[in-house]
Amino acid sequence: MIEHPFYNQAVHGPYALYDVGDLVLEDGGVIPAASLAYATFGRLNQRRDNAILVPTWYAGSSKIFETAYIGAGRALDPARWFIIVVNQLGNGLSSSPSNTPLHDRATFPRVRIGDDVQAQHRLVTGKFGISRLALVTGGSMGAQQTFEWSVRFPDMVARAAPFCGTARTTDYNRLCVGLLADANMSDPAWRDGRYDTSDDVHVGLRRHANRLAVMGFSAEFYRRELWRGLGFSDLAGFLSGFLEAFMLPMDPNDLLCMAWKWQHADVSRHTGGDLGAALGRITAKTFVMPIDQDMYFPPQDCEIEQQMITGSQLRILRSPFGHTACVGIDPDWMAQFDHHLSELLAIPA
Amino acid sequence: MIEHPFYNQAVHGPYALYDVGDLVLEDGGVIPAASLAYATFGRLNQRRDNAILVPTWYAGSSKIFETAYIGAGRALDPARWFIIVVNQLGNGLSSSPSNTPLHDRATFPRVRIGDDVQAQHRLVTGKFGISRLALVTGGSMGAQQTFEWSVRFPDMVARAAPFCGTARTTDYNRLCVGLLADANMSDPAWRDGRYDTSDDVHVGLRRHANRLAVMGFSAEFYRRELWRGLGFSDLAGFLSGFLEAFMLPMDPNDLLCMAWKWQHADVSRHTGGDLGAALGRITAKTFVMPIDQDMYFPPQDCEIEQQMITGSQLRILRSPFGHTACVGIDPDWMAQFDHHLSELLAIPA
Repeated sequence: MIEHPFYNQAVHGPYALYDVGDLVLEDGGVIPAASLAYATFGRLNQRRDNAILVPTWYAGSSKIFETAYIGAGRALDPARWFIIVVNQLGNGLSSSPSNTPLHDRATFPRVRIGDDVQAQHRLVTGKFGISRLALVTGGSMGAQQTFEWSVRFPDMVARAAPFCGTARTTDYNRLCVGLLADANMSDPAWRDGRYDTSDDVHVGLRRHANRLAVMGFSAEFYRRELWRGLGFSDLAGFLSGFLEAFMLPMDPNDLLCMAWKWQHADVSRHTGGDLGAALGRITAKTFVMPIDQDMYFPPQDCEIEQQMITGSQLRILRSPFGHTACVGIDPDWMAQFDHHLSELLAIPA
Repeated sequence: MIEHPFYNQAVHGPYALYDVGDLVLEDGGVIPAASLAYATFGRLNQRRDNAILVPTWYAGSSKIFETAYIGAGRALDPARWFIIVVNQLGNGLSSSPSNTPLHDRATFPRVRIGDDVQAQHRLVTGKFGISRLALVTGGSMGAQQTFEWSVRFPDMVARAAPFCGTARTTDYNRLCVGLLADANMSDPAWRDGRYDTSDDVHVGLRRHANRLAVMGFSAEFYRRELWRGLGFSDLAGFLSGFLEAFMLPMDPNDLLCMAWKWQHADVSRHTGGDLGAALGRITAKTFVMPIDQDMYFPPQDCEIEQQMITGSQLRILRSPFGHTACVGIDPDWMAQFDHHLSELLAIPA
């Protein structure tokens, strides 16, 4: 792998690397010697039945998830659970355009949610010898991977908690994500992916930040100036100090790899396009958890899918932070999440 | 004025031109021999008390409004009312970057909602000798002008029906509009406004269309594939045949002129920033009419302002077409609008 100034252990570690081997992709092509970066918390018990798998969201990492969700007294308590947070392909830590020699940058193949789950399956079974996960949970693109796990390997998923995401990307959501992708691609410095360093594409990355500013939060977030609670004294300071600072270190081709994957998530690929049939395969105890003010994944889109999952429950969480609540910036939302997840984890499965 | 291949009588007429004279602008600068394009329907009665003024919305024209809202048996019935639909400055028909010699293109001065209302006041009083309007109504940027009229000239506005818009642009809304402006400005062919013809900026205009696609409608619109009702058999056809076809003939600098004006609408400029004091000046019988699924102007933002207007009423209209319902593509919404507007027009004022 190529060392990157942002996607590294100093910023996102510690994490381990698992050699997946050559990963043959659903859309053709292969990632040779594919690598998954993952971090674990807690200890796998002797019966190997206390494992929880968490795939990451768009522009996220195992570190961001750990910081927001894992801790003593939390639903995800390492004293009780063995938690594996696995970075999705394309996020800069696992195999990605930014770190894959010969297959880097514009030549990195197209990756699907199913490729992630296939690679993660090797990690879970090959590295840890786990045959059944107590829980798979993830937000946004992490929810897409959670659904994929539950449909593809129903016997391996005892419980599932997909939040702020759907099993099949809707037309509306695909258009939303298109605006994120266009942010980078509209920058001439992107050069069809052939820029020298991601800094060259800073205009595109700033645009990307501005788009997250609009749809990643909510009208109420701005009306109540909730950015003040994040440590900013004016709106311009929040936009630059929070959102641009978040996006600027990232790699545009990595983001585009994930954005394409996000746009094409679809568990019904297993059932010839029949979403009900795909979701009908799920046997996990499932809580589907949208956010009431999420502009990317409106609760109704989540509810439609939830109703196709036998015995599942819809738990709508409330946050004026909208979609971005899931990164852990709204303590009230985090408390709701922990409450519901604890309830799910207490259900025998 | 310069003849334009799209902004002309063949496409948007018939309309008349009113010579406003030199228009000194709030932010400095002047539009010499400023011109307002307007169309009238019905006849002004002898008492001159049946006049209705309608300012246009962003990227709209008097023709679009006429087609959707005016007709026999409608709330806006020319048999009963004298309706003046006036094109806002910058829309390509009234004085705009695209049609103003010496002040064209990138050198056109910044125009505010207050400048529009000042120019329209000259039209209403100077051309028609009207001292009191039975109604001012408009959607989106038309609502901004309606509020400005009601605050600035309270004695002249008997009734007001601002719909899908606010009196002061919120931070959230300003960010939304920023994405529209950025669509054109991000196209290198825009050249800081110094392109030769608007066709040169077709990439930016297509981007603009894609952004309207996301926030101009709603998740439900795409979930239910309501674009089928607009005559399209697939989503790609709708995006190109409806939205791109709508945007491509327009002039980027005209759009940017309007977008800046939209972002800076604020009736509280009259009261040192005190919105309650500004809206407290309104004496018109006022119905504030947001759309439940409007992503640009969420109903709550409208309700906050409505509660500052003495004796006003909030009438929330329902449409899965979101903000774009106001262009007249949702018959159910149009029926709701007519119902409420008829009720307002029946109130003695």
